[in-house]
Amino acid sequence: MSRRIIIGAAQLGPISRNESRRAVVVRLIELMREARSRGCDLVAFPELALTTFFPRWYFESQDEVDCWFEREMPGPETQALFDEARRLAIGFYLGYAELAVESDGVHHYNTSILVNKHAEIIGKYRKIHLPGHTENEPWRRFQHLEKRYFERGNFGFPAFHTSIGGHQGVFGMALCNDRRWPETYRVLGLQGVEMTFIGYNTPVHYSQAPEHDHLQAFHNHLSLQAGGYQNGMWIVGVAKAGDEEGSELLGQSCIIAPTGEIVTMCSTLGDELATASCDLDRCSEIRDNVFNFEQHREPDTYGLICETKGGVDTLKT
Amino acid sequence: MSRRIIIGAAQLGPISRNESRRAVVVRLIELMREARSRGCDLVAFPELALTTFFPRWYFESQDEVDCWFEREMPGPETQALFDEARRLAIGFYLGYAELAVESDGVHHYNTSILVNKHAEIIGKYRKIHLPGHTENEPWRRFQHLEKRYFERGNFGFPAFHTSIGGHQGVFGMALCNDRRWPETYRVLGLQGVEMTFIGYNTPVHYSQAPEHDHLQAFHNHLSLQAGGYQNGMWIVGVAKAGDEEGSELLGQSCIIAPTGEIVTMCSTLGDELATASCDLDRCSEIRDNVFNFEQHREPDTYGLICETKGGVDTLKT
Repeated sequence: MSRRIIIGAAQLGPISRNESRRAVVVRLIELMREARSRGCDLVAFPELALTTFFPRWYFESQDEVDCWFEREMPGPETQALFDEARRLAIGFYLGYAELAVESDGVHHYNTSILVNKHAEIIGKYRKIHLPGHTENEPWRRFQHLEKRYFERGNFGFPAFHTSIGGHQGVFGMALCNDRRWPETYRVLGLQGVEMTFIGYNTPVHYSQAPEHDHLQAFHNHLSLQAGGYQNGMWIVGVAKAGDEEGSELLGQSCIIAPTGEIVTMCSTLGDELATASCDLDRCSEIRDNVFNFEQHREPDTYGLICETKGGVDTLKT
Repeated sequence: MSRRIIIGAAQLGPISRNESRRAVVVRLIELMREARSRGCDLVAFPELALTTFFPRWYFESQDEVDCWFEREMPGPETQALFDEARRLAIGFYLGYAELAVESDGVHHYNTSILVNKHAEIIGKYRKIHLPGHTENEPWRRFQHLEKRYFERGNFGFPAFHTSIGGHQGVFGMALCNDRRWPETYRVLGLQGVEMTFIGYNTPVHYSQAPEHDHLQAFHNHLSLQAGGYQNGMWIVGVAKAGDEEGSELLGQSCIIAPTGEIVTMCSTLGDELATASCDLDRCSEIRDNVFNFEQHREPDTYGLICETKGGVDTLKT
């Protein structure tokens, strides 16, 4: 038996600050059409895929911030993407900044959605691990104000049971910095997730430890590959890449097998599609054996992971 | 400031079934002397370093099992190793099978110890993640009866505050299969561990999924490197390597920096020493930044990791 689905990792090159959402959606549609022509059942786009990565700037007013957010999905500028997905009968994963008007007020999230081939949103995730800082820090070459502009997601790490390419599977989502934390993959893995979509915008330059800038690509793949292997799941990592408003963003979008192997990867820093045929049944090669959780995990020794945030001082205990 | 200590990863080649502990200790002492001559403050030996990897055989009687275990440490056959360590003023990490007579009876553990330059045992760890199986399964090319011969460790993952090479640091231990589980490193990392010693005996052939045999070396380094990077700690991974009684054991013992980079590695399958100068202060490059736990971890979303062993069926919830 096999449950093969064809997935496209649709990397985006830079989006300039003044590039309109309509112009970006044209780029997304072009990649979606290529994905369909290459047999894809689903195409995955990056995090915050509709605009430039705006948390690199400090904005004085909330209005200036809010203009980067979507109030509805689909909205007037994104409807064309949904229409094209329905016409092509292709699913997609998309990251965007979400302004949510809810009963208790207005909320801002770094969000992704999973959309089926009927253009129906069948899953939503709101980013948990927000990186960066909350205050204006003009000493940085560019800022990373995700902790200022977004609230932490309030859905946890949900698993979505749905059909892609005619095969029922269990799918998860994460965004950017989430991928560095092994807890992300494990919480998804414990829910039986077989494929996780992870969009990212990752500056190569990290202001606080620039001595590691040359390791960004290594750390990206190391985290994605370990997360895939240690949970026996497919990983689809999709970058916004290239020189975006003076910030060089990491590329190397890739699809990773449950063995941890990179099976396809982008090799430019522009709009580029990498595709792979992913058999969801292969997850069991790992999950039924070396990472058979039921046989081998020892959760009563893991308490600290949930009990403490920053760690404990063992000298005091 | 820096806290540089010189560490030797002392890989062992195969130990035959009929090789005596005294003969093995001679090999360990030779590696220890080389380590000292190359400036090492501490030398790390593999898991179950005193005998062949005996869980590959099924033994009918408990007496046959117990003959592979140490009843005291140091004992008559291992005293020479401690004496030499004291003479050379070098610390060591050593894995062995421990038969412990305790108030509630006799226990069997897969154990490691941390020994200071005065030949005093300053830390003990008993393996948590026991791989393999409990029953005789003669269909396998060789067996892996760790779950039969050992009890699960009862110390959790302790952190040890001690001085190595004149520098105070926080050290942890793990053994073999522990290294595949991100929980191992995280529980140590949350206690501020700066360097973890991990001995292993890893057959290249895995009976239940032989289609992955060619990936053993990749999976070994992937797990070690991710664990090091994601917790900003040094990792010292030490193999028993080579063709041992017909079972090919993985080599590639290595030391990994808190950046996840392999900084030294063995390149044979025999007795071989690889050394590195490890600055414990470098952990903060990672731990104060991208993996600043206090700033960025979100433990209230990690509940499943501690609440469930085998996972949950999200269709039912």
